[in-house]
Amino acid sequence: MYSEIINIGEELLIGQVVNTNASWMCQQLNNVAIQVKYISVVSDNEEDITNALETAINRSDIIFITGGLGPTKDDLTKDVLTKFFNTSLELNEIALNDISEFFKKRGKDVTKLNYLQAMVPKGFDIIRNPEGTAPGLIGKFNNKIVYALPGVPFELNYMFENHIIPGLKNENRNEFILHKTLLTQGIGESFLAELIEDWENQLPEEISLAYLPSAGIVRLRLSGRGDDKDRIIKEIDDEVSRLNNIIPEYIFGFDDDSLEEIVINILSEKGKTLGVAESCTGGYISHLLTCIPGSSKCFKGSIVSYCNDVKESQLFVPAALIEKYGAVSEEVAIAMAEGARRALKTDFSLAITGIAGPTGGTKDKPVGLVYIAVSSEGETLCEKHLFGDRRDRNIERSSITALNMLRKQIKKAV
Amino acid sequence: MYSEIINIGEELLIGQVVNTNASWMCQQLNNVAIQVKYISVVSDNEEDITNALETAINRSDIIFITGGLGPTKDDLTKDVLTKFFNTSLELNEIALNDISEFFKKRGKDVTKLNYLQAMVPKGFDIIRNPEGTAPGLIGKFNNKIVYALPGVPFELNYMFENHIIPGLKNENRNEFILHKTLLTQGIGESFLAELIEDWENQLPEEISLAYLPSAGIVRLRLSGRGDDKDRIIKEIDDEVSRLNNIIPEYIFGFDDDSLEEIVINILSEKGKTLGVAESCTGGYISHLLTCIPGSSKCFKGSIVSYCNDVKESQLFVPAALIEKYGAVSEEVAIAMAEGARRALKTDFSLAITGIAGPTGGTKDKPVGLVYIAVSSEGETLCEKHLFGDRRDRNIERSSITALNMLRKQIKKAV
Repeated sequence: MYSEIINIGEELLIGQVVNTNASWMCQQLNNVAIQVKYISVVSDNEEDITNALETAINRSDIIFITGGLGPTKDDLTKDVLTKFFNTSLELNEIALNDISEFFKKRGKDVTKLNYLQAMVPKGFDIIRNPEGTAPGLIGKFNNKIVYALPGVPFELNYMFENHIIPGLKNENRNEFILHKTLLTQGIGESFLAELIEDWENQLPEEISLAYLPSAGIVRLRLSGRGDDKDRIIKEIDDEVSRLNNIIPEYIFGFDDDSLEEIVINILSEKGKTLGVAESCTGGYISHLLTCIPGSSKCFKGSIVSYCNDVKESQLFVPAALIEKYGAVSEEVAIAMAEGARRALKTDFSLAITGIAGPTGGTKDKPVGLVYIAVSSEGETLCEKHLFGDRRDRNIERSSITALNMLRKQIKKAV
Repeated sequence: MYSEIINIGEELLIGQVVNTNASWMCQQLNNVAIQVKYISVVSDNEEDITNALETAINRSDIIFITGGLGPTKDDLTKDVLTKFFNTSLELNEIALNDISEFFKKRGKDVTKLNYLQAMVPKGFDIIRNPEGTAPGLIGKFNNKIVYALPGVPFELNYMFENHIIPGLKNENRNEFILHKTLLTQGIGESFLAELIEDWENQLPEEISLAYLPSAGIVRLRLSGRGDDKDRIIKEIDDEVSRLNNIIPEYIFGFDDDSLEEIVINILSEKGKTLGVAESCTGGYISHLLTCIPGSSKCFKGSIVSYCNDVKESQLFVPAALIEKYGAVSEEVAIAMAEGARRALKTDFSLAITGIAGPTGGTKDKPVGLVYIAVSSEGETLCEKHLFGDRRDRNIERSSITALNMLRKQIKKAV
C-alpha cells in the first residue's frame, strides 16, 4: 500500500517555510508501516493542485493533501476536490457548530468567511479540528483514500495523531516496516562502503541499506519490509549483530543517539564529572554538551582559551611549552587537558587545539590540523587529526571526533 | 521561466531528514528571480527518478536534481541520466584529479568507488566540488537545463552559491528583482507589525514585505520586482530610510549581517578585546563569536561556569554572593562579568546566567529567567529577561539578546 503527500503553499516554494509537515507526516506513517512513495509541493494554483491530485490518484492508494483549507481567496483545495470528484459543496452542521464554539470561547463572532469553512464537498466526511477553524476532510473513491488537512502544523498534528493514524493502523495489516540505524564515527562513507561490501552483498532481499553521511558521522540505515513481521525483526537483528562484528570500533550508537548525550549519560550514571578546554572549537563542544537537559549533573564547565594568555593563566600551560612546540601541538593539548582537570576539578577532561582556518596554517601545520587530548586520573591520551580547510566544517568535525574519543576513554575507565 | 526541484532520498520519505535543501534552494533561486513551480521528493528507485525527470522536463525549463550522486550502490542519478538522455558514462579527468587531491590532502588514497565518481554522462559538464568527492553535473537539452547535485547540504550550498546562481543571474535578464532585509532584535513579530502598520500600508505596489521571525530576531524583507530597475532601487532605498526612522532602536543590521560579526568587527577595528562568562548558554555565545573568521584578533576566551565552584574559582564570584542572591541573579551576573574581565584580562566582558530548563525553575525564578551583564572599564550594566520554557530556544534567544546588548554597549563606549 503506497501513500503520497501533496503540500500546497507558495511559502514552501519561495523557501520562506521549511516543509517540516512532510517529514513529520512521513515519520508518523512510517511508524504504522504506511510507505510514503512521493512528496509533491505545488503552489496555490488550481491547475497545479488538480494535476498533482490526478497523478497521485493514479499511482498511490492514500493521498494526503495539506494546505489550502483556510478562509481566504488563495485557499483552493475544496474547489479542486469538488470539481475533481464532480460533486458540490454542502453545509456540514458539525463543522459549523465547532467553528461557532471555537470563536465563542475566544469572545468573537463567526465571520462570513469562517462560515464558508463549514462547507464540505459532498462525499467527504469531516475530521474535527479543535485547534483551529478548518475541518479536515476524508473521502474514499474506488479503494483510494483522499485526506485534505490544514497546513498549520499543530492543527495537522492533532488530527493526524488522534484520528488519521489510529484509523490507518487498521487499514494496513499486511505489511510490516522496520528501520534500524547504526551510527558510525571516524570513517568516511567510501572507506566504510569498502569495509562492509561483502556484508552488504549478502543482505536478504527484504533488507535494504542506506548511507547517510554528515560532518564526522556516517549513519547506516537498515530497512526491512514484508508481511512476516517476526522474520523481518529477526533478520534486522541478525544483520545488526553481523555489522557490529565487522566494524565495532566505528559504531557508537543507534537511531537517535548522539555522542554528547551518550557521554552525559555515562558520566551521570557513574557519578563522574567533566571539564573541557577548547581552543579551535571555540565553545562548540561545550554547547553540544549543554544542549542535553540535565547535563549540569556531570558537566562542570569549560575554558575556551582562544589566546596563549588564557591557556597559561587559566589552564596552567607553561609559556615555555607553547614557545617550544607551538599552541597547536600534542604537548600543549595534553597540558591543556591536564590543566582543565586541575582548574575545573573534574574526573575527566577533554582538550582540543587546532587551526580552524581559513588563515593561520603553515606548511608544517596546515589548516585543519587538530590535536585532541583526554585526561583522567593517571592517564592522558592525545590524538592527531587532519581535517579539511573549511572553518565551519573543521569546528564541527573536530567536535564530533573529540566527543567520540572522550566517549571511548570514559567507557574504558569507568 | 519555471524551475523545479527533484530531491532523491529514502531518508526524506521516512521523515528521517527534513528537506532543508529544497527550501534553501528556493530562497536562492527566488533571489535571482527564478520561480520554483514544483518540488518532488522520490526514493532511490530508478523508475521513480525517471518518471519524475520525465514529468519535470515536460513542464519546466530548469530542473535541479539533488541526491543519488554518492559512491554507493543506492546512488542512481547518473544511471538514470545516462539512460534518459541515451548516452554513456565517460571518465572526467578534472573530476578525477579533484577527487585525488581531495584524498591526498587528507592523507588517503583514492578507492575504486571514488574512481567511479569521476565517471560522468557524456553531454554533461561537471561542476567542481571542493567540499566533497561527487562533482555536480549540468546538461542542456532542447533549451532545458538539467542540474544534478549532491544531497549533502554543504556541498550543494557551495556549488549553488559559487557556480549555479552566478550562471543563472545571466539567464534571466528581463525582470529585475531586489531584496533588502532589515534585521531587528528585541521585539516580537506581532508587536513589530503593529508599530509599522501605517508604513506597511503605504508601500508602493511593486514592493512587498515579508516577516521572517527566528529566535530573538525578526527579519523584515522588502522585495521589489519589475522592469524599471532604477525605480525599484530608489523605492527600496526610500522605504528602508522610512523604516529606519520609525524603529531605529530595533534595527541592528541588514541582509546577511550577524550580531556576532558586527561585534567582532567593531572590536577588531578599535583594537579592543573581549572575554565571556557563560552559564545557561553553555558555550553557545563563544561558539557564535568564534565561527567568525579572524575572531581571535579580539576574542580572548570564555569561561563556561556550569556550576558554582567554577564561578567561584575561575570568575572570582564570592560564594557568599551566590549563597545570598542565588546563581541566577543580577548580583551574580555582574560579578561574573567583572570576574571574566579580570580573569581573561580584556577590555570588555559579557556574562550570562539563567535557567535554561526544562527543570530548575521555581515560582520566583521560572525557567526562562536570564540575567545578562556587560562590563567595561568603569561600568557594568545588567539586564533581566524572561524567555519561554523551551531549553533550545532559551539558549538561542538568550545568546542573541546578549550579543545585541554587548553590541550596544561597545558602540557607546568606543
